[in-house]
Amino acid sequence: MKQTILCLDMEWVLTPEIWEEVSKNTGIKELMLTTKDIADYDELMNYRKLHMNNNWLTLSKIQEVISTIDLLPWAIDFMNWAKDNMQVVILSDTFIEFAKPLLKKMWNPTIFCHNLIIEDNKIVDYKLRIKDQKTEAVKRFKELNFNVIAAWDSFNDTGMLNEANFWFFFKPGKKATDAFPNIPVAQSYEELKTFIEKSL
Amino acid sequence: MKQTILCLDMEWVLTPEIWEEVSKNTGIKELMLTTKDIADYDELMNYRKLHMNNNWLTLSKIQEVISTIDLLPWAIDFMNWAKDNMQVVILSDTFIEFAKPLLKKMWNPTIFCHNLIIEDNKIVDYKLRIKDQKTEAVKRFKELNFNVIAAWDSFNDTGMLNEANFWFFFKPGKKATDAFPNIPVAQSYEELKTFIEKSL
Repeated sequence: MKQTILCLDMEWVLTPEIWEEVSKNTGIKELMLTTKDIADYDELMNYRKLHMNNNWLTLSKIQEVISTIDLLPWAIDFMNWAKDNMQVVILSDTFIEFAKPLLKKMWNPTIFCHNLIIEDNKIVDYKLRIKDQKTEAVKRFKELNFNVIAAWDSFNDTGMLNEANFWFFFKPGKKATDAFPNIPVAQSYEELKTFIEKSL
Repeated sequence: MKQTILCLDMEWVLTPEIWEEVSKNTGIKELMLTTKDIADYDELMNYRKLHMNNNWLTLSKIQEVISTIDLLPWAIDFMNWAKDNMQVVILSDTFIEFAKPLLKKMWNPTIFCHNLIIEDNKIVDYKLRIKDQKTEAVKRFKELNFNVIAAWDSFNDTGMLNEANFWFFFKPGKKATDAFPNIPVAQSYEELKTFIEKSL
């Protein structure tokens, strides 16, 4: 009868990808790039900063765009179900300044994420809260005697996923399922709920 | 620019005291006793079990009573403000089976608490998630590089309170303020908000 913490990624699992939406909305194509294109995160962020600044893209403008993004269909129902039945913590490598307008649409669930460094409404840098925060969080939850379930779209966060008591793919790409053929794959919230219920 | 987790007690800070309300509502006076009357928690719980069973008080009946309890006035506004500005985790020694109807009234914030062991709708025992769970949780949050603020009504949880980066009394008794004369005392959510804002 261990209590459960469900750890979820925010983007792709509950919301669209933020940078992609910002890119589409502002027409700055360079912001479409992800770690799939530039593997080194710091290099990618420097590239993004360069193109935001070249285009005079302020934090307020980005937040304005983000606040127009809808949650994924049925995400709110899934979250309500999950919060009724266990604890839920979003573990995301996004920045709190970006996540806020989206979190508000789900009554602000708990999120562990990072920070942007802002000067005069301009994104000048970012600050990771701690290195490998997702793995560290899952470890700590387990130390607090929680059963930790993780639902993820990719396998980038292998450290964290291996640490969890149970993990499931949510609408993963082929690369992910090829790499981890034994991990259960949920293509919908209904399927994910079934997996989770069996792991409580 | 550390991110903050605000740790709150549930009863007294956000909701009335559950056992007190159950006692008043069911007329079972023995359920009014707290650790102030029987210091040993296990002894107190055995006493409560005895009197619940003597009075055929089922879990469903207790949950029915709890679901009629209102949050404290303005608690929801305080929670909304807090969740807009930081992460909030309720650390409580209540049981999830009791807390649920009250949590639902605040859109299910994250809570770390304990479990009851139920057989045939009867409370036969309880299970602490881990020993000294509040201190352990605050320690873990700090390890995850959060600034931890705690707002509490009493000083029973000294271990936890000393561990937090900042702590404040919320409507404490005289015994608490006598024991810790240097801890800031908030008599209202507005005052508490002022203290918290200065500690972000």
